Amino acid sequence: MMTQVIVVNGGSSSGKSGIIRCLQAVLPDPWLALGTDTLVEAMPASMRASDGGIGFAADGKVSVGPEFRALEAAWIEGIAAMARAGARIVVDEVFLGGPYSQQRWRKALEGLRVLWVGVRCEATVAAGRELARGDRTRGMAASQADAVHHGVTYDLEVDTTHTEAMECARAIAARVD
Amino acid sequence: MMTQVIVVNGGSSSGKSGIIRCLQAVLPDPWLALGTDTLVEAMPASMRASDGGIGFAADGKVSVGPEFRALEAAWIEGIAAMARAGARIVVDEVFLGGPYSQQRWRKALEGLRVLWVGVRCEATVAAGRELARGDRTRGMAASQADAVHHGVTYDLEVDTTHTEAMECARAIAARVD
Amino acid sequence: MMTQVIVVNGGSSSGKSGIIRCLQAVLPDPWLALGTDTLVEAMPASMRASDGGIGFAADGKVSVGPEFRALEAAWIEGIAAMARAGARIVVDEVFLGGPYSQQRWRKALEGLRVLWVGVRCEATVAAGRELARGDRTRGMAASQADAVHHGVTYDLEVDTTHTEAMECARAIAARVD
Amino acid sequence: MMTQVIVVNGGSSSGKSGIIRCLQAVLPDPWLALGTDTLVEAMPASMRASDGGIGFAADGKVSVGPEFRALEAAWIEGIAAMARAGARIVVDEVFLGGPYSQQRWRKALEGLRVLWVGVRCEATVAAGRELARGDRTRGMAASQADAVHHGVTYDLEVDTTHTEAMECARAIAARVD
Repeated sequence: MMTQVIVVNGGSSSGKSGIIRCLQAVLPDPWLALGTDTLVEAMPASMRASDGGIGFAADGKVSVGPEFRALEAAWIEGIAAMARAGARIVVDEVFLGGPYSQQRWRKALEGLRVLWVGVRCEATVAAGRELARGDRTRGMAASQADAVHHGVTYDLEVDTTHTEAMECARAIAARVD
Repeated sequence: MMTQVIVVNGGSSSGKSGIIRCLQAVLPDPWLALGTDTLVEAMPASMRASDGGIGFAADGKVSVGPEFRALEAAWIEGIAAMARAGARIVVDEVFLGGPYSQQRWRKALEGLRVLWVGVRCEATVAAGRELARGDRTRGMAASQADAVHHGVTYDLEVDTTHTEAMECARAIAARVD
Repeated sequence: MMTQVIVVNGGSSSGKSGIIRCLQAVLPDPWLALGTDTLVEAMPASMRASDGGIGFAADGKVSVGPEFRALEAAWIEGIAAMARAGARIVVDEVFLGGPYSQQRWRKALEGLRVLWVGVRCEATVAAGRELARGDRTRGMAASQADAVHHGVTYDLEVDTTHTEAMECARAIAARVD
Repeated sequence: MMTQVIVVNGGSSSGKSGIIRCLQAVLPDPWLALGTDTLVEAMPASMRASDGGIGFAADGKVSVGPEFRALEAAWIEGIAAMARAGARIVVDEVFLGGPYSQQRWRKALEGLRVLWVGVRCEATVAAGRELARGDRTRGMAASQADAVHHGVTYDLEVDTTHTEAMECARAIAARVD
């Protein structure tokens, strides 16, 4: 049975998106890449700064409210439905809720063949890359580096601290049926 | 029964996205905005230039191949599932296939309460705005201005030639239950 | 003597950048477009939120500090030098200081042939377009719409409230020698 | 005498821009970052695809024509004038012409205190990062990796193949007076 969904979880500036673009390039079939950033982008601008929506504190802490969670739940159902309808999907995620976030996805993806991938990066290195990118709230990288992996289980973990995105992508691709 | 999906169809540079951002601001509930641009962005970079994917000719004509259509079909199913799971969604679409495109959406959205909106803009005005935006392949606006509306039926049409995005958004919002 | 610099002044979301892209397309020679946005982008990220740099208040008011002004003064000298070295330049400006801002440019551009252009847009219309763009701090459009023109003198004024960017560009181009 | 200009030369996807953002963060004074990308962005859209302008071939080769060179010469004069007027500037460059490119800058910056920095990255690693970024013409990284350094002399060289942007920035900052 072939892999239908690849869920990639990692902190901000851990290098997930770069790995996913490489993965799309090395996998022979076309895969859709969708994730938290897509969802946040799809929300009303006002939700990016409201109590019910998503907040980015000055120290990089991200908090999400009940309206965000409600839309996210429907979003996850929709991604699962796309996969069931035949699209192969790489999900670019930040498990702010750790095992609870994974459980939400696990339930929605039930019956689908999923590869769970963790992307790690040492907090100080990720913080440096966050600064080098220049388009992210500072502090997110350090705040999320370890937290998003607590209590989460994977089929495969990669670490971008000393490994290039392409090499990580090849390691993941080798596990895709 | 409340409106669950708003499908907004119009040519490139007709002003759909601006209307949709205004719509998200004036509607009291949070609505997700998803569309063709989101889908294209989610595809592998290689599909943006391949025979099976999506092509942008020098004259602005857009063509899509079988691999694009396959992913798009699953994408549409997924959007419908998100709506059924409770998210209110504005779909930002370009019906390159006219009534056939609408029929695909109509079938996927069966049972959901949908508001169909057409966004028109005179071809020469849209072409000028395309140039003013500076980030689109030239010729798309003129090539799509009328073509995407042929054979398509709407609950409501707005025209951005002489009407601001905000005013169009208010007209649409007035029709949302 | 041919026009060497076109200084375009207008509030945020008045449509200056769109007009300038059209202007670059209709003018037979290649013109460089440089402006406040280029300068802000070139500054350290930390200056976009510091007392000495540039601040964007929640109500859309923009304030600039002494470090910003110092870099800006050198920037203006540099643009003038580019024009003297033969590049034809369109300057995309927001005269937050009104006549004082104009005087700074006037002094730096002394000896060069300059066309001064004002871009107006009714405050409510500009505010709607700001919302439709979705990538600007809300309130800037309304706050700057009239203020940036107080005490400033022009060779030519255009108004985007009811006129397309391309038409404004053609009116400006007709005044370029 | 204090350093007035830092010229950073390296191929596409070698990591120059990330290093420069880190450099702006670690240097105590505010430095402006300006470069080839700023110049290309300032040009008319039509020049990005014309014989006289700048061309990006399918294999990643970049070619520039006489109109590009003329605007570039004025641009370089302008940057030098900004530095003479007191702005401290980091120049983000790709010496497509190798020593001839450096000579052009050297002449324009005469009398100014300049730090010349080379940013190297192994071609295969740079090509992988180009793919991971997803927003660049493929092939540029490999094509430029070594070529832009031929015949160019530096005060300092850094190599991003195995060194983070922040660490490179610190090494450069240590040489700034």
